[in-house]
This record gives sequence, C-alpha cells and structure tokens, in this order.
Amino acid sequence: MNFKILNTDNNARTAIISLLHGEIKTPVFMPVGTYGSVKSIMPNELKDIGAQIVLGNTFHLWLRPGTDIIKLHNGLHNFMHWDKPILTDSGGFQVFSLSKKRKITEEGVAFSSPINGAKMFLTPEKSMQIQNILNSDIVMAFDECTPFKIADTIITKKEVYNSMTLSSRWAKRSFDEFQYQKNMNMLFGIVQGGMHEDLRDESIDKLLNIGFNGYAIGGLSVGEPKEDMIRILKHTARNLPKYSPRYLMGVGTPEDIVNGVENGIDMFDCVMPTRNARNGWIFTRYGNIKIRNSAYKKDLLPLDEECTCYTCNNFSRSYLHHLQIIKEINGARLNTIHNLHFYLTIMNEMRDAINNNEFNAWKTKFIIDRQQLNKK
Amino acid sequence: MNFKILNTDNNARTAIISLLHGEIKTPVFMPVGTYGSVKSIMPNELKDIGAQIVLGNTFHLWLRPGTDIIKLHNGLHNFMHWDKPILTDSGGFQVFSLSKKRKITEEGVAFSSPINGAKMFLTPEKSMQIQNILNSDIVMAFDECTPFKIADTIITKKEVYNSMTLSSRWAKRSFDEFQYQKNMNMLFGIVQGGMHEDLRDESIDKLLNIGFNGYAIGGLSVGEPKEDMIRILKHTARNLPKYSPRYLMGVGTPEDIVNGVENGIDMFDCVMPTRNARNGWIFTRYGNIKIRNSAYKKDLLPLDEECTCYTCNNFSRSYLHHLQIIKEINGARLNTIHNLHFYLTIMNEMRDAINNNEFNAWKTKFIIDRQQLNKK
Repeated sequence: MNFKILNTDNNARTAIISLLHGEIKTPVFMPVGTYGSVKSIMPNELKDIGAQIVLGNTFHLWLRPGTDIIKLHNGLHNFMHWDKPILTDSGGFQVFSLSKKRKITEEGVAFSSPINGAKMFLTPEKSMQIQNILNSDIVMAFDECTPFKIADTIITKKEVYNSMTLSSRWAKRSFDEFQYQKNMNMLFGIVQGGMHEDLRDESIDKLLNIGFNGYAIGGLSVGEPKEDMIRILKHTARNLPKYSPRYLMGVGTPEDIVNGVENGIDMFDCVMPTRNARNGWIFTRYGNIKIRNSAYKKDLLPLDEECTCYTCNNFSRSYLHHLQIIKEINGARLNTIHNLHFYLTIMNEMRDAINNNEFNAWKTKFIIDRQQLNKK
Repeated sequence: MNFKILNTDNNARTAIISLLHGEIKTPVFMPVGTYGSVKSIMPNELKDIGAQIVLGNTFHLWLRPGTDIIKLHNGLHNFMHWDKPILTDSGGFQVFSLSKKRKITEEGVAFSSPINGAKMFLTPEKSMQIQNILNSDIVMAFDECTPFKIADTIITKKEVYNSMTLSSRWAKRSFDEFQYQKNMNMLFGIVQGGMHEDLRDESIDKLLNIGFNGYAIGGLSVGEPKEDMIRILKHTARNLPKYSPRYLMGVGTPEDIVNGVENGIDMFDCVMPTRNARNGWIFTRYGNIKIRNSAYKKDLLPLDEECTCYTCNNFSRSYLHHLQIIKEINGARLNTIHNLHFYLTIMNEMRDAINNNEFNAWKTKFIIDRQQLNKK
C-alpha cells in the first residue's frame, strides 16, 4: 500500500503516502514550482522550512525549457535540484486558462504557443508522455477544467455534463497511456462536474471504474461563490474512496485549506503564498499584512513575533516595507520564506491536532487568531 | 593601530583592519548593498561565501528609507541584519551621477530628490551626520567626483584643479564634523585630481595634512581610457602612505582588481558582480559567460566545474539559461551567489599568494586561465 492512514478525527485524517522519491505526511501543502523553480525560494530553503513535495507545471515545462532539456537532465528532480517528491499537473488547467485561444475536440486541445505562436496539440497521451519525461512522483490525468462562467454567463448543466464526460474519456486514455509508459509513479484522476452534486457523483463513479492511485477535486476556485465551493467540496470529499489520497487542486487561503482538511482532504497546492508574497501580501497567524501599507514604515516588530522563520527571526516589518517600496528581490524572497513557512507550519499543526484528536479545538482557535490583526 | 600589515610581496600586501564590528583581512572586496540590501543575496548567504564587509550608499539610504527609520533600528547593521563591518560612501559619487540635475556651490550640492522632487541639500557636514546615524565602520569624506568628460569634452586641467581643491576643503569640513560626532569609526579621505599626476600628488598632500584613517582613490573608472586609469592608479597608489589602508573606489573587473592588488591597493567595491549577475553575465575562473546565449541551452556542465559555490555544486548551465530566459528571481540569485563567490575566492587566493610571496606567479596563471573560454 502506498497510502497508509495514521489517524482520523471526524472526517479529518493523517496519513503517509510512499512515493518514488520519499514519503510525505498528509495533510500536505505543495508549493508551486511552475517552471522548475518555486519562485524566489531555493531547494535548500524549501527543505529548511519543511516542504515535502513541490508541484511542477506540465504545460509550462513543455513550452520552456522543453522536454528535450528535461530529458538531458534525467527528469525534473535533477534539473531543478529537488530530490524529494514532485507532483505534476496535466496541463489541463493551463490550457483552460488560454480561454479563447484554444480549440477543444475529442482528440485533445489545439492552441498556439503563448511563447512563439507555434501550433501545439495537447492530448491525454501527450500529457502522460511529458509527465513521464518529467519523472514526477504523482502524475495527474489530463482533464478539461470545467469553467464556472463563460463571458459572464454561468454555464448550463448540459455543458458541465459534456465537459465532465469528456474528462472521463480522457481519464481512461490517460490511464491506458500511463500503463504503457510502465513507470513506477502514481496516477491520480480528477473529479469534475461543476456545481452539480449528481454530476460530481457520476464523475467519481467513472474514475473509480478505471481505478486510480488517488483522486483530485478539480474545477473549484474557478470563480464560483464561496458557498458553492464549500457545498461541492463537502459533497465530493465525502464520496471519494476512503483508502486513497484526496487532493483539492489549486486551493487556497489558509482558511480554505483548514476547511479542506476538516472535510478529509489530504493534499493541497496553491500559488497564493508565493505569488502574494512577491506582491507584499503576507499571511500570518494573526491575520494578513499588506506590507506596502505606510502603517508598517516605522514598525519594528517582525511580521509575527511567534514565527520562527528566517524572516521573522531577523527582520522588522519596517525593513520589509522598505524592500517592497524599492522593489528589491530580497523583499520577495523574505516574504516568500515567511508565507510558505506559515502554510507549512499550519499543516504541521493540523497533523499534530488530528493525531491527538483535537482538530476541532485547533481550528476554533486558529479561526479566532486569524482575525486579531483586523480587530486592531 | 587599526591597520596591521602582515606581509608584502613587491607592492602587493596583506593586512588586517580592525573595525568596530570586527576585523577584515585585506586585500578585500566589498559587495555593494545600495539600499541596505545586497541585491538578490541575503546576509546568511553573504557570510557563507566569505563576505567580510559590505558597502552601503549614504545618498540612497538618506532618500529611502530615510535616516529616521535607520535611527529607529539603531543603525544600518541592525536594519539590514548584517553584524560585520559596513563601509558607507559619502554620497558624492551619486550626486555627481545626477549630472545636470544638481548645482554645486562651496557650501554643498543642491538637487531635487529623484524619488519625489523634494529640494535636497548635501554638505560635508550633512554627509557625516547621515553616516553617523548609519553607524558605518568606515565613513567616507564628502567629495566631488571629478568627471573625465562633460558633454563629450574632456575637462580642462584648470577644471580638474578647481574640483580637487573643492574636494580638499570639503575633506577638511568632513574631518571637523566627524570629530564633532565623536563616534569610534574610521574616516577615509578621497584623492581626486583626474588624469594629472601633479594634481593627484597635491590632493594627497592636502589629505595628509588633515590626517585620515585611510585613503581612497576616487575619480577612476569614470569613462577614461584604460591606460589612463592604470597610469593614475600606479602613480597614486605609490604615493599614498604605506601604513594606512588604500581603497580603490568602484573598481572593477576581476583583472582590474588583480591589477589594483599588484599596485598595493587593499580595498575594492563594485556593483559589477551583482548587477551583471542579474543580467546573466557570469564571471568564472576560465572567462566570462553570457548565460542567455543559446550555446548554454543544453549545456549540462556547471558554470565552473572547479567552483565550490551553491550554484556550481547543484545546477547546470542549462538550468541557469532556462531561469534567465523566463526571468526567474532564482536565476538572479544563483548568478549573484556565483559571481560574488568568485570575486571573494580570488581575493582569498591573492591573500594566500601574497603571504607566500607568490603573487606574480598567481597573477600570471590567473590571467591565462581567464582567457580559456574565449579560446574555444
């Protein structure tokens, strides 16, 4: 078994996933390394703050540097000097983000390279082949990420159904190609079905009939109201098989992640801690800080007095404010170290809380703590 | 004595300078931290690669974050979390760089802030007061950096003379204000005099009459032909007092620095290793590498196989090429780590060579080595 549950506390659970490049403890947050590099932070620093696994983007790495370069390095791990596990997405979400610039058929997705305009064609088989070259520990099936709205109009249930069933057929083709590649990694299916419980159920059934190593929830955090997101998360997570890893894709704020863990999700990824850091948006235990704000110009406190990261140990908010104002690279770095350290620390605390059957108490305190800065 | 010569090898020498925040071994290269941050590299990384002292810019720090903020942090060391020595320039060179946007009088320099247009006035006294707040270990006298050309015309000897004598009067005012501040740091005078040996001699005489803790050579690398630079460097270095530190300001390439050491210079600073790194221009033992060049796209070698820096230990030229192409912050970081490590390593090697009376042999090999990549 590659997935071993350690403890459950209501729906929340801790587990260990054994992968080609090591074990990871869940619930886990995966920093995003789009182009083979987690922006502004180095592999040695990622390890220092406790990162267990990072995410790489198939679509981006396919375009740049290209699979020939990755192949020369014997895979993404060696290319980016990260010897722990890597999960790669399938490229489905990025193709979806191209919106009007791509054409979807049963066979796959045609689009023009945003880099040089070259005609590209991505299929389930191609996605598997690329991820095989990347040699990621967890490979994601190729899917269409069903949009919530197109041009300000919420898409119809029929459209959601068509998209979900296309993703199901692509999931089967992904599975078949993955078997052919005969690599030792894990393959995850992706549940779609928009905001419709019955379509989510049907998507799960179709994926279970194929049989994956893990199951991801896709198509959330794509513009829908928060209550729809929570409703579908709760419903879908409950219906996923218990003895496989569950992965909520592209989510989210600290509160979203805590909510996911409460509903039995094991894995998360999001660009928020890294992207927001570069823009000076800091997550702390006691609330969020926009470090550009002139209130921090003369503030000698660290971002969070209780935080043990390199940034909080050594630098004042005033210094970080200064670096943000002068657009200094080291500002992006220090903010990124703090934000990722914060995300990884709360995952760690949640694992401890679940193991001690104290998740609810931990969550209650966390939600209150997070509102402190706003109250001042 | 704050300056102790350890060995001399022809004109080259090794020494120890004892400063408020520790000792530094010379010849030394000082990475430039303009705004209280050496761009793209952190204090812990600077220590890892052997940096002994960094340079801060009085002019920039006066404008942003301003002396009130530095004062709140009890000086620049604590603000930027660097507990080893700091040298600050006087602001003279930056004011000079404003060219037409400033007005020089006997009293000082009037200019508009490039940040917000506010009217500013910098004098020798003000420069000392700012550097006192920065609490730098080595304070530089306020001078006018004599230009080589104005609007494509080489300035006359009379103009150079007037500029040099103004700098001498400002040196005296700097000295008087420095004594008044009663801090425990060292004050260096700056020799001017353009490309004229007799004016350089006169400048030295005037500075010696005041009596500084060290002497810097200013007004070189400001657009003059290389042979003029070398002629004036040789002449001026020879005439500086033997038992005081000698500092060649704003220089330069690895070869320039080796040449400076050969002529008895103890201290150097330059933005070249850091600025060039961000632009993908790499210095190595065997020549310079423009990492953007497509020749490196599939090159699996490190920048320099013999280099022991974090970058060379872990990443290929191909990876660094990729990071440069996608404009990734980590590319600037890895290049900066390598370039500064290279500069600091050759300083270390030169100190060893001088201590073993083998400087000439070291230099001969170094100059040949540096041409290897170009020969291929």
